[in-house]
Amino acid sequence: MLYLIGLGLGDAKDVTVRGLEVIKSCSRVYLEAYTSILSVGKEALEEFYGRELILADRETVEQESDEILRDAAVTDIAFLVVGDPFGATTHGDLVLRAAKAGIQHRVIHNASILSAIGCCGLQLYNFGETVSIVFWTDSWKPESFYDKIRRNRLSGMHTLCLLDIKVKEQSIENLMRGKKVFEPPRYMTVNQAAEQLLQIVQNRRELALTENTICVGLARVGATDQHIAAGTLQQLSAVDFGGPLHSLVISGCMHPLELDMLRLFAVEPSSFDQINVEDSSTYLSS
Amino acid sequence: MLYLIGLGLGDAKDVTVRGLEVIKSCSRVYLEAYTSILSVGKEALEEFYGRELILADRETVEQESDEILRDAAVTDIAFLVVGDPFGATTHGDLVLRAAKAGIQHRVIHNASILSAIGCCGLQLYNFGETVSIVFWTDSWKPESFYDKIRRNRLSGMHTLCLLDIKVKEQSIENLMRGKKVFEPPRYMTVNQAAEQLLQIVQNRRELALTENTICVGLARVGATDQHIAAGTLQQLSAVDFGGPLHSLVISGCMHPLELDMLRLFAVEPSSFDQINVEDSSTYLSS
Repeated sequence: MLYLIGLGLGDAKDVTVRGLEVIKSCSRVYLEAYTSILSVGKEALEEFYGRELILADRETVEQESDEILRDAAVTDIAFLVVGDPFGATTHGDLVLRAAKAGIQHRVIHNASILSAIGCCGLQLYNFGETVSIVFWTDSWKPESFYDKIRRNRLSGMHTLCLLDIKVKEQSIENLMRGKKVFEPPRYMTVNQAAEQLLQIVQNRRELALTENTICVGLARVGATDQHIAAGTLQQLSAVDFGGPLHSLVISGCMHPLELDMLRLFAVEPSSFDQINVEDSSTYLSS
Repeated sequence: MLYLIGLGLGDAKDVTVRGLEVIKSCSRVYLEAYTSILSVGKEALEEFYGRELILADRETVEQESDEILRDAAVTDIAFLVVGDPFGATTHGDLVLRAAKAGIQHRVIHNASILSAIGCCGLQLYNFGETVSIVFWTDSWKPESFYDKIRRNRLSGMHTLCLLDIKVKEQSIENLMRGKKVFEPPRYMTVNQAAEQLLQIVQNRRELALTENTICVGLARVGATDQHIAAGTLQQLSAVDFGGPLHSLVISGCMHPLELDMLRLFAVEPSSFDQINVEDSSTYLSS
């Protein structure tokens, strides 16, 4: 049996009781290491689980899936994924390879940022399509995420923006020399995402989304030191959210209860209601 | 401190290790009992947690929130919610009352159907707005969910349909007599949801959604006896999914990898690809 086990969002203790039982009983335990991170490292997980973990980066999963699935027809293999196994990244490829080899799979679900984001007080029902904001480079500044946010907002829907993660990147120099030397991992901050959005907003000057649109920045959701702040896009570009992972939500049309919840996290509680009135009037006239 | 703790989707062991620790340490532990159910009852949870649970139905939470929050400024209170605390139902009201009373809150996240639905193989990125399908009565047959599904589908997005749950309902007779006698709980099945949708589809005769549209029915997601079946809306209206809770997904535009995943759950594997070709051609010409 291939077990796909979600680890949740915070640290080692966010695994489920069932997930921990399965981890302890499997022959081999892989830790997916390329789409997300927990606030703790591999060693802390190994200590808490009482098991050695085999790191599986993107190359391993794509090129050595036979090794991951070895003997899984007769023994149990665990594949650990931060968040939910079918959350932000799909692991369909591994499941399909298992199915082709006649190996059954089971999913042990856990929290994913896609639903945990509800902790900011915006209703999950009212979210439209999720978007990914990628790091701009000097020569590559895609704006497709803006168009999706705009579309959601015009339908009154909120937008969850997943922020870019760059791990195991090679510099062009090292890539050309064939050197497997990797750059330090980079995790996009709310500030960086807000600044990229502000550039688009300032170029386009559309009423659907402006520097005064109410947004929510979230860092380390589910961890003990999580940080949530609600304010204008401009305000959020200057808030210090601390370490990764960060997420950004662009509000749509807000129910009074949603607004009451956001006020708990307001950057400037005293001006929050006034900002919202201005943002809503802009938004409604767009 | 008020702890909002997600219990996940299956049974007692789907709580997280951290969640279980907090449950064991709190002064009082409430179990939210009106929006969802686990496959096990209150007694099984009490035995596993080693704690007495106080059932909190909708009335308790709305009318007796002061009692729930009593002493929470000086002691720890746990409020347990099936799935994720901010998943299908918000508990913003309780959080706001706590905040007003100067009581801090913390969320211990867990799996929600809103992200666990990814286990069917459709990418969560490609889901549009979530809809709720309510039980029709003889005199009340709302179709608003159809319009949202149609809109998602025309944008190429999949739709998660949450199916109606009726608990603590009173018959009109008992309601008028002021008798607090409740009807047995009712949980909408995939079959019932498919049949309501088929009635709309057959009346409207639009190409955007037909009886041949590929859908996925899911029952007891996350439990050991979960059941997933992919087929046409017509096919799913006749599949026996067993006990609650059920969910229904209406596909949008599918990536080949998504299609490969759905094929694993096909009601009729031999005809699945042909159905999809026909559905896609209908869909693309709409």
